[in-house]
Amino acid sequence: MTVIEEMRRTHPAAGTSDALARCIQACLECAQACTACADACLAEEMVAELRTCIRRNADCADVCDTTARVLTRLTGENAATLRAVLEACRVACAQCAEECEQHADMHEHCRVCAEACRRCEQACAEALAAL
Amino acid sequence: MTVIEEMRRTHPAAGTSDALARCIQACLECAQACTACADACLAEEMVAELRTCIRRNADCADVCDTTARVLTRLTGENAATLRAVLEACRVACAQCAEECEQHADMHEHCRVCAEACRRCEQACAEALAAL
Amino acid sequence: MTVIEEMRRTHPAAGTSDALARCIQACLECAQACTACADACLAEEMVAELRTCIRRNADCADVCDTTARVLTRLTGENAATLRAVLEACRVACAQCAEECEQHADMHEHCRVCAEACRRCEQACAEALAAL
Amino acid sequence: MTVIEEMRRTHPAAGTSDALARCIQACLECAQACTACADACLAEEMVAELRTCIRRNADCADVCDTTARVLTRLTGENAATLRAVLEACRVACAQCAEECEQHADMHEHCRVCAEACRRCEQACAEALAAL
Repeated sequence: MTVIEEMRRTHPAAGTSDALARCIQACLECAQACTACADACLAEEMVAELRTCIRRNADCADVCDTTARVLTRLTGENAATLRAVLEACRVACAQCAEECEQHADMHEHCRVCAEACRRCEQACAEALAAL
Repeated sequence: MTVIEEMRRTHPAAGTSDALARCIQACLECAQACTACADACLAEEMVAELRTCIRRNADCADVCDTTARVLTRLTGENAATLRAVLEACRVACAQCAEECEQHADMHEHCRVCAEACRRCEQACAEALAAL
Repeated sequence: MTVIEEMRRTHPAAGTSDALARCIQACLECAQACTACADACLAEEMVAELRTCIRRNADCADVCDTTARVLTRLTGENAATLRAVLEACRVACAQCAEECEQHADMHEHCRVCAEACRRCEQACAEALAAL
Repeated sequence: MTVIEEMRRTHPAAGTSDALARCIQACLECAQACTACADACLAEEMVAELRTCIRRNADCADVCDTTARVLTRLTGENAATLRAVLEACRVACAQCAEECEQHADMHEHCRVCAEACRRCEQACAEALAAL
């Protein structure tokens, strides 16, 4: 059992969705992968050609971090915000994946990051469907 | 001239929108006000009745912080994400303002925070219109 | 292999420390656990007695998030900052664990969170030793 | 009166230090300036020579954001963490300023950012002295 699942299980609010727990995990992995990919792109000789990739990585990391936090909270009511944040995260992940995929053949860090983004995009879609 | 405006003016990318610069300022003020309001609500004797207020404050602070960062970046291209993030921020601010306004008569921190949220909601709408 | 390890392995900068990679993982788990524990404490009937716990959870979550990001970056040089951030994270985790442990018998979420904090405190100490 | 000051004044906890309120303002300005400077450096033709500058900007932005949040909270007790976070922020700002100052003649965004970093470094030192 992951710490995410343990924290869900021990929360006073009952019956939280598996799709939301999976989405938190996907957001945390994607945020870290995007911060790492921005940093790895910056270290590449061809950094000047990777500006949009670095930009989308940085934006996606910020959005995923926020989404993981909003999804983690179960107390009180904020459904409209949760929905809008998940939608923004789905878009940020899709935009970042699209860019990273263009560099995946040349830079393995872009390939790994694109996969994390696609998993998170999918997890956001499933979390939205489960709301 | 604020530091935000100075940083805009000295950026290699020219011609950035005043509406976006104002929105960054509104997001930073709103994020700080929301973190402070959550903390002030937690200190109130009637904290148990302020759970949704604390929740919306915390979510709104996270979303505003991320929005300020995404808006600050001008290099590369990420327009679809910027639009989705501004929309999420507009919703988070509206939801938080709506809740804080219900406690504004009793708690002055909720009144000040609600005003910051409404300004940020408006600034996000104007930034979206300016894209 | 975790995504964190994959991103490390594919980065242009070689030879990164295992202790740093483990510390990133511990920070991400601890940040999420602390956000969840603050939220779970807020949902408890005895919320008024959990104010310091919620405060330390919120601070610890913010510090762990930042530490994970700083640790993830390998490009350029910022050793003095990395060291100071790891030290702050070690302190934040210790302070949060100490408080959560006092409620661990009554609230299982505090027990799980305290364990995540102690693991992160230890991981920060090991990362500092590996610098 | 700034929103930061209004939120301080309306908080149930009385007698908060002016030095802490000024430090919050300095952290928010510095975080935004650092995110903007990293982005402006990325847009420069000579980006490959600005890697350490971008790295220190990104780290400093994260640390300042977290410091502003920790400083904003007045409820509960977390003095040891507050002290360690302020010390980390002082170091991050000093390291970033030192690097930006080396590019200040060539890049005006580095000059403006270095000034924001030095103000924040000073504000952290004064906040530490006021604790």
